[in-house]
Amino acid sequence: MREKIGIAIIGFGTVGCGVAKILIDQAELIRRRLGIPLEVVGIADLDITTSRGIEIDKKLLTTDAKGLIENPKTDMVVELIGGLQPAKQFIENALALGKPVVTANKALLAVHGEEIYSVSQNHRTDIGFEASVGGGIPIIRTLREGLAGEKVHTIYGIINGTANYILTKMSEEGVSFDEVVAEAQRAGYAEVDPSTDIEGFDSAHKLAILINLAFGTKVNLEDVYTEGITSIDSLDLEAAREFGYTVKLLGIAKRSSSEGTSMAGESIEARVHPTMISRHSPLSQVHGVFNAIHLVGESVGDLMLYGRGAGSLPTGSAVVGDIIEIARNLIAGTRGRIPPCSFQPDERKALLLKPMTDLRCPYYLRFTVQDTPGILSQLAGVLGDHDISIASVLQRGHKRGGKVPVVMITHEAVEQNIQAAMQAIGSSLSDRSMLIRIES
Amino acid sequence: MREKIGIAIIGFGTVGCGVAKILIDQAELIRRRLGIPLEVVGIADLDITTSRGIEIDKKLLTTDAKGLIENPKTDMVVELIGGLQPAKQFIENALALGKPVVTANKALLAVHGEEIYSVSQNHRTDIGFEASVGGGIPIIRTLREGLAGEKVHTIYGIINGTANYILTKMSEEGVSFDEVVAEAQRAGYAEVDPSTDIEGFDSAHKLAILINLAFGTKVNLEDVYTEGITSIDSLDLEAAREFGYTVKLLGIAKRSSSEGTSMAGESIEARVHPTMISRHSPLSQVHGVFNAIHLVGESVGDLMLYGRGAGSLPTGSAVVGDIIEIARNLIAGTRGRIPPCSFQPDERKALLLKPMTDLRCPYYLRFTVQDTPGILSQLAGVLGDHDISIASVLQRGHKRGGKVPVVMITHEAVEQNIQAAMQAIGSSLSDRSMLIRIES
Repeated sequence: MREKIGIAIIGFGTVGCGVAKILIDQAELIRRRLGIPLEVVGIADLDITTSRGIEIDKKLLTTDAKGLIENPKTDMVVELIGGLQPAKQFIENALALGKPVVTANKALLAVHGEEIYSVSQNHRTDIGFEASVGGGIPIIRTLREGLAGEKVHTIYGIINGTANYILTKMSEEGVSFDEVVAEAQRAGYAEVDPSTDIEGFDSAHKLAILINLAFGTKVNLEDVYTEGITSIDSLDLEAAREFGYTVKLLGIAKRSSSEGTSMAGESIEARVHPTMISRHSPLSQVHGVFNAIHLVGESVGDLMLYGRGAGSLPTGSAVVGDIIEIARNLIAGTRGRIPPCSFQPDERKALLLKPMTDLRCPYYLRFTVQDTPGILSQLAGVLGDHDISIASVLQRGHKRGGKVPVVMITHEAVEQNIQAAMQAIGSSLSDRSMLIRIES
Repeated sequence: MREKIGIAIIGFGTVGCGVAKILIDQAELIRRRLGIPLEVVGIADLDITTSRGIEIDKKLLTTDAKGLIENPKTDMVVELIGGLQPAKQFIENALALGKPVVTANKALLAVHGEEIYSVSQNHRTDIGFEASVGGGIPIIRTLREGLAGEKVHTIYGIINGTANYILTKMSEEGVSFDEVVAEAQRAGYAEVDPSTDIEGFDSAHKLAILINLAFGTKVNLEDVYTEGITSIDSLDLEAAREFGYTVKLLGIAKRSSSEGTSMAGESIEARVHPTMISRHSPLSQVHGVFNAIHLVGESVGDLMLYGRGAGSLPTGSAVVGDIIEIARNLIAGTRGRIPPCSFQPDERKALLLKPMTDLRCPYYLRFTVQDTPGILSQLAGVLGDHDISIASVLQRGHKRGGKVPVVMITHEAVEQNIQAAMQAIGSSLSDRSMLIRIES
């Protein structure tokens, strides 16, 4: 019978501090659940001198991550340094030693997940990654366990809090993208280099992990269509409101029948882009730094999970949930009870991703045109030539330099045709054209 | 190495049919997760002749539940007959035989949970009950596992779909309680005897289960204050809207410091009643038969889970999630990995429930008074004498027989004082008085 379980924390940044704080503050609660205590046996970081504002025995701090992982007192390794290397090496070392791992590293799992899952399985050593998607929202556990008998049709999610904060601020206060980004950086909601968040890459990483679990398929990150929010103008958000929509950066994965498209059989749509959704949909009520994931399953129907998608303590809470799950495995003497991706490794299908050009949906289009008679009929003509019909049109905003913005909503159209039409309209008819896909 | 896992379904009603259908339709998906198939070895019900509209080998049907449980082919028992007996006997028989159980029976767990959890632990045999609260919403797994390191401060939930459907209809269409109940019965959303749903008993059952898991404490069902929605008038819903609120039947559990009350130390509020919540709160957006549970944790902050709280397939989905979890335990050869209530049995504290009389909140009050000068000052006088101050007043609706309804919102007040004031106002000043607690 074990007397305690030794936890090594690699990375003493925002999330690492949150995890340490929860393990200290809730030590008694956790002992009441497990029957034995968790003990932090060491915390490794390159910087072990800056104070983090929590009381930690200085002797626990080390710069030697490798030594800490190999330390016989370490029963479980918590990787929170982020990035690809040396995080990958640390995780693989621990797994090879039979020491289970908990990580919040979405970029690493999205890029090198398959290799890491293989190492985990080859050594029958568990890996938990609840904190990699949606911060404190228990979406990974829900997909791996609760919905294990569920044929998932669709997952939509607001899975990047920074982008949602920016869109919410722009929408509520009518301020420009650049102003909000600068303000978010000052407030600590956006990184000094915010590109991972605002270009959609972070959402794509998380979507790849969700697809993997929900559909039992491997996914190449490069195949996930990824478009950020940097071209969104506050004009678009205003127009969205008038049309009855809200603009959100969504990660979307959908089972799609491929009838009438260039592919045979079932495929999956996987895309990250600004999306107009009905003002009455639950996701449109998700404001600021909150995240939410809405899924539709064959049996369960609609299910939505909502919470704080980032931050030291919410993300730390998800990490601690995984630590406790794995501690329960260690205490019970069981390992590999659930495969990392919830499906048996040889049963993961290579489902095809549907090409973006085959996408069908209504579109919001914005053009900036010369304010002359006949210009609208010229635009409509080009769209009509590409099989795109217009549902409604608004002329928005003020003339600048003789030009005026025109926004419209189309009926359902095919992405390939939209792209061809946008190219045909080109710069001769419109400056700074913009499209936003609409999800109904 | 097992080749398959034999499932016995006891109860072939709404949820039993959903479970059978999912196990048949998703057999291949489940096999890809587990590596081996689940096999339904029998379905027991008193009625094995009425067609349920799903294709089942007739040889699987039996009226002999006891024989089916004892059948050596049965590895796991799924109890879906509901009610106290013989469900309790069947569950305890199965557990005593070392056969794990999955149940959706909230009434049984709320009333006899402690006995059943003891049997489960004494035989180190697992019991799953995700489907007992919130249908397809994974709230039990979230509390038992994901939030196992979380100090939960508050849980609020819309956990009865029938009551929420009735309140939504009344609010949207301005129709009376009786009309909506009759319509809901015709549509199959309400039982012939709807009292369990509309009197709040079903919500109290579910709240007791949630408290147990979230706070690690035993709770006596009789100690949960329970008030239904039968006294709600469409006038109240209209007035709520004007004051900026929505009325929902909520189950509420809160950690409460007991300063200035009749109790020492930390206690828990546990109550089910119609509640006015801000029109902008996420729970106010939960319409019709949907359920949602909002919790606030020390680390995770706000977390909300939303989905279908009832119905054959959503509830069936939760049952199947538990079946798969337990199958994974059987395959791994592990049992008792997580205690039924997530805490070690000897570590469950006897937290005190706070007496309802100590509750502090703002109140909505409705009186029906004689339309004469001075009546409002008389009412305000009685309220003032009981330390209750009024925040706003509206005179609503039309005079009937010389009487007119007056509604008001109070500042925060103490329940004991409110009850005393209502009694003092009595029938001399007002007919049909009504109070609704406000949650902020």
